[in-house]
Amino acid sequence: IAEMKRVPYHIQRDVLDELGVDQVAEKSDFKISAKEKFREAVRCTGPRFKSCFLSFVPLLTWLPRYPFRENAIGDLISGISVGIMHLPQGMAYALLAAVPPVFGLYSSFYPILIYFIFGTSKHISVGTYAVMSVMIGSVTERLAPDSDFMIPGNDTNSTSLDIVSRDAERVKIAATVTFLSGIFQLLLGLVRFGFVVTYLSEPLVRAYTTAAAIHVIVSQLKYSFGINPQRYSGPLSLIYTIIEDCALLGQTNIGTLVVSIVTIIGLVAAKELSALAARKIPIPIPVELITIIIATVVSWQMDLKTEYGVEVVGKIPSGLQAPVAPAVSLLGSMVGDAFALAVVGYGIAISLGRIFALKYAYKVDSNQELIALGLSNSIGGLFNCFAISCSMSRSMVQVSTGGKSQVAGAISALVILVILLKIGELFEELPKAVLAAIIYVNLQGMMKQFGDIRSLWRTNKVDMVVWVMTLILTVLFNPDMGLAASIAFSILTVVFRTQLPKYSILGQVPGTDIYKPVEDYNQVKEIPGIMIFHSSATLYFANAEMYIDALYEKTGVDVAKLLSHKKKLEAKRLRKEKKAAKKAKKEAKKRAKEAVKAAEDVGAVEVGPDPDTDTTLPQAIILDLSPVNFLDTVGVKTLRNIYKDYGEAGVQVYFCGCQRGVVESMENGDFFNEKVTKSILFSSVHDAVLYCQQGNSEEVIQGTHL
Amino acid sequence: IAEMKRVPYHIQRDVLDELGVDQVAEKSDFKISAKEKFREAVRCTGPRFKSCFLSFVPLLTWLPRYPFRENAIGDLISGISVGIMHLPQGMAYALLAAVPPVFGLYSSFYPILIYFIFGTSKHISVGTYAVMSVMIGSVTERLAPDSDFMIPGNDTNSTSLDIVSRDAERVKIAATVTFLSGIFQLLLGLVRFGFVVTYLSEPLVRAYTTAAAIHVIVSQLKYSFGINPQRYSGPLSLIYTIIEDCALLGQTNIGTLVVSIVTIIGLVAAKELSALAARKIPIPIPVELITIIIATVVSWQMDLKTEYGVEVVGKIPSGLQAPVAPAVSLLGSMVGDAFALAVVGYGIAISLGRIFALKYAYKVDSNQELIALGLSNSIGGLFNCFAISCSMSRSMVQVSTGGKSQVAGAISALVILVILLKIGELFEELPKAVLAAIIYVNLQGMMKQFGDIRSLWRTNKVDMVVWVMTLILTVLFNPDMGLAASIAFSILTVVFRTQLPKYSILGQVPGTDIYKPVEDYNQVKEIPGIMIFHSSATLYFANAEMYIDALYEKTGVDVAKLLSHKKKLEAKRLRKEKKAAKKAKKEAKKRAKEAVKAAEDVGAVEVGPDPDTDTTLPQAIILDLSPVNFLDTVGVKTLRNIYKDYGEAGVQVYFCGCQRGVVESMENGDFFNEKVTKSILFSSVHDAVLYCQQGNSEEVIQGTHL
Repeated sequence: IAEMKRVPYHIQRDVLDELGVDQVAEKSDFKISAKEKFREAVRCTGPRFKSCFLSFVPLLTWLPRYPFRENAIGDLISGISVGIMHLPQGMAYALLAAVPPVFGLYSSFYPILIYFIFGTSKHISVGTYAVMSVMIGSVTERLAPDSDFMIPGNDTNSTSLDIVSRDAERVKIAATVTFLSGIFQLLLGLVRFGFVVTYLSEPLVRAYTTAAAIHVIVSQLKYSFGINPQRYSGPLSLIYTIIEDCALLGQTNIGTLVVSIVTIIGLVAAKELSALAARKIPIPIPVELITIIIATVVSWQMDLKTEYGVEVVGKIPSGLQAPVAPAVSLLGSMVGDAFALAVVGYGIAISLGRIFALKYAYKVDSNQELIALGLSNSIGGLFNCFAISCSMSRSMVQVSTGGKSQVAGAISALVILVILLKIGELFEELPKAVLAAIIYVNLQGMMKQFGDIRSLWRTNKVDMVVWVMTLILTVLFNPDMGLAASIAFSILTVVFRTQLPKYSILGQVPGTDIYKPVEDYNQVKEIPGIMIFHSSATLYFANAEMYIDALYEKTGVDVAKLLSHKKKLEAKRLRKEKKAAKKAKKEAKKRAKEAVKAAEDVGAVEVGPDPDTDTTLPQAIILDLSPVNFLDTVGVKTLRNIYKDYGEAGVQVYFCGCQRGVVESMENGDFFNEKVTKSILFSSVHDAVLYCQQGNSEEVIQGTHL
Repeated sequence: IAEMKRVPYHIQRDVLDELGVDQVAEKSDFKISAKEKFREAVRCTGPRFKSCFLSFVPLLTWLPRYPFRENAIGDLISGISVGIMHLPQGMAYALLAAVPPVFGLYSSFYPILIYFIFGTSKHISVGTYAVMSVMIGSVTERLAPDSDFMIPGNDTNSTSLDIVSRDAERVKIAATVTFLSGIFQLLLGLVRFGFVVTYLSEPLVRAYTTAAAIHVIVSQLKYSFGINPQRYSGPLSLIYTIIEDCALLGQTNIGTLVVSIVTIIGLVAAKELSALAARKIPIPIPVELITIIIATVVSWQMDLKTEYGVEVVGKIPSGLQAPVAPAVSLLGSMVGDAFALAVVGYGIAISLGRIFALKYAYKVDSNQELIALGLSNSIGGLFNCFAISCSMSRSMVQVSTGGKSQVAGAISALVILVILLKIGELFEELPKAVLAAIIYVNLQGMMKQFGDIRSLWRTNKVDMVVWVMTLILTVLFNPDMGLAASIAFSILTVVFRTQLPKYSILGQVPGTDIYKPVEDYNQVKEIPGIMIFHSSATLYFANAEMYIDALYEKTGVDVAKLLSHKKKLEAKRLRKEKKAAKKAKKEAKKRAKEAVKAAEDVGAVEVGPDPDTDTTLPQAIILDLSPVNFLDTVGVKTLRNIYKDYGEAGVQVYFCGCQRGVVESMENGDFFNEKVTKSILFSSVHDAVLYCQQGNSEEVIQGTHL
């Protein structure tokens, strides 16, 4: 159909020039530079303030157009369902954060209202989240350990724990770290750095949440067994905690253990039943709510607290609290934790938000999400909330019960408000072991992620290694340090992956212009005299030496051979030149034709292979550089050395498939000069092969001519 | 010449099958696995023991064949010249290592003899090296600071320094860390891990040596000014030392300063003169030797020590010392330093060795070099030597004076032996300021490396950033930590480089099968209805999102549009299907031809663009994946999403230029199924374009037919 012309790169360049095809100055229109991001952020000030303000407060855009008739009922039902879920989850996750349960309810109220105003995802249910809560817990327990709040007891030897002042301090710490993480998210959003989340690859996030779930479970064991282990922090604290727990098993409170076992069995059974019933009933059964109601009633009637020593939730104050300023003096000691919270919270929320956005065909603005979460957390922090993200289970319920917009979230917040103002105090007799049981059962999904190992083993072994390493690092070094270590490791795998490339010699698929590795296909034929070398990876400092070694090995030469070959050629040429000079002198009077022949002989020796030596060098080597993404100085130097070494041994080297950036790096690296021009560059392997063959056949034709 | 057939990937597969071209099972013949390395190392035991032993002791191979007549005189002259250089350098670098000068002479003797036996490079001059010495110095001064050796003076308030026991301790520390670094090198060599040096890219090594030179200079200032600053260790110690030095400038010893200035001026002048004279005299003038002889005589005659308070070298014991066992108790506190010494020493030696090997056409075995250096250092450590590597300046002299083999090194060692036994004590009056001056002048070359910044700015900006960062990190965090940080940073740049790729739409160079970015060339034409998308980098987790965003932007669609398009298409298809069904029912008795037409209409709607919508989607999108080195699970998922999203909107997506590893990753990642077959893979862009166009023209032909 189209005329098929094969033009080597340099000829094509000429054609382009003739056609008036000028190279356009580089437009870096898609490079997202930090500068542009800054400008974009700054652009808000000025005449476009209004539209920018509207995009900053999405509520103003979508609420006036809210399709009341279509969405209202779905959002109402969904909001109430989610609100009911918030109650047990908020209280349970407050245990994880090591603050009194009522603060979990605050965290299920303020941040959600703020996200309602600023958020862009219509379907995610923001609020308390197990992973975030356990991270908060590690901060609060580190900065306010039990040992700081021991007060001397009545007799001189015994001490007792001042729970009230300890909890007050922990609430302050949790609120402060939440505030700081919100500020981080806000800042990241304002400088449009939403893309940092790309470092959280899927295997990493899944392994990380699984590891965090393990931390969660270990931290809750004490409530299930009713024991009081010492608090450990820093690396390996999980291991120490488990050892301590095992040592204290003898002190298990039987009442608490019975409550735990009964609740877990009951919850699992009820969940299975409700899954079966889901087909018949449109609204999910609030299993957890029913559980805590029953548990509270039972605990109150049987007086579990005094009769059996079961630890209960305790005082739940009614009403809301006035905002308090964050504890500035503590900020310095929690910067790392706050940053980890900011990244993890955002990472979870945005990935879930994207899933729903894709499903229901709308767009989630990653930077606006950062701002919304940042405001939720920073303002929430002022109201003694702990850091929030979004929960998979609640979001699923929100969507399945007909939630169609952020209004559902707002309604769920109102449900929590009602509970806070009126009903909260009813749950004071609820055993903490019941909340722990709810946490365990909620973590089922994360535990199922262990199956990833098997599926990744089959699909991608490197990603499996990332998964396993993330799990190990996060379990051993705790969620904050573990996250940093895991990200570092997953970035390193990129280097590993390009460091052990597959080197191959390409051959022609007979009768086509397709070149494939000869070791992969039996009938692919190498072109005689031409060696086409291909590496599967970019050429850069970490694999440059391997590249040369592989090239030497595949072409069957080593440097010494190459250089001895070169020296022999040199000597031979000198001899021939002498001979030719003598001949020319002698036969000076003969025809000019003779002299030309002698000179051509000399030329032929330079290029052709040497029949005397034992080396069987190819006439030309073609390096397929199409997989090269970039060239660093080591890469340019390597190519230069290859070109020079083989060139001196009489082997011409051609490069093909170079991207523009690669050619630019070669230009800047002074690869080209008067001797080495761009004529050694070709667009494709076949172009280069044809050029080589043409050159040879011309030589042959000339040879037969004379 | 060759028949040019364009075969899409799947057709070609069929052709290959017909030809009996079976895919060969993967041969990983070039993958250097750790297992193989281990096997190779183990292979020594067994019947091939003898040849393996010979390769372990290269001396046994080359010495019997030593061409006495040709090499002996050159090696002798060169050996003596280098031996003479060893004397001042050894003593000066001992100052850097913070041990008495005589240990610099030991270090110029034992290790060199051992390298003579085990080394494979014929031209490098192993021995003391400034960078290694300053690294040793940081260990000795950290573990044996002056403050540990204060003894009460005669009156109660004053204390004086117990130099003898301090130096004894420092010698022990230096010898132990040297021994340990030798063991590390030996182990690395035995497990064939010589390739670790590939992480030391050229910009990194040059910046690192420059930064080390700055450390060297700062550490020697005290000798030039005759002051006694406090010793700092850890990060930023260089800054603290400079501040301390400046504060102490008032206490400068005028005599010492005069000696320093005179020596530096004299040395620089003499070096310039000898460079000028080099054309006439074949052997280089031993400027440094003459300097220390003159300085010693002057110091002795003028009694600089007592008259002017100039610090001199002091006691130089004659003869050799018996070996001592390393201080095992210290090993734990110096593992990091020893490892850094092992890597740096090897890195410097191998890069210099390779330069000479390339120039004189022989091979340097990187693993044997590791073993040779490891034995030199570990045995040297037993004889109180400090760690050695090889020096550029001495190697240059060795080669230029006619050195042709390791024999020159052995002779230089003998020269040092003579000095140690007989002449050494003559230099006891040599001022330390003179040695410091020799060090400064020797570092000229490293300081000239600052010019790299300019040349790298021009050639490769990322490498310039690596250079500058390595310098800053090494200056601030000292040579040991700085090395680790620099390597980590240079590995990170690989990720940065693939994280901001250039995305472009390819167009056809008119009349050829070459496709180039349309923004680079004016006359390159996009194929109507076909969008060819190209990314300059591998597709993986860190840029997968950018890839999708860029694709959407370049193709001018966003997800919402795409999905609304899809919904409209769906609705339309349903309508049409209904219509067609009605029609078919009505005209069931008519010719079958009619029914076919209706069905085809339905099909056409699925593939063709929708005239009603405002979106102008292309008919087909071709993704050029040739720069993709590998695919992780995120990459496979991204491709799957692209295929699915566009497919649902009626746009067919084709992939071309996939490497075999990429196709395997797609296979393992369950990309292909009954619906999505490998027929969407093409070998080249042109194949895919032809296939698309063929499909269209067939449609057109069919259309006109009816």
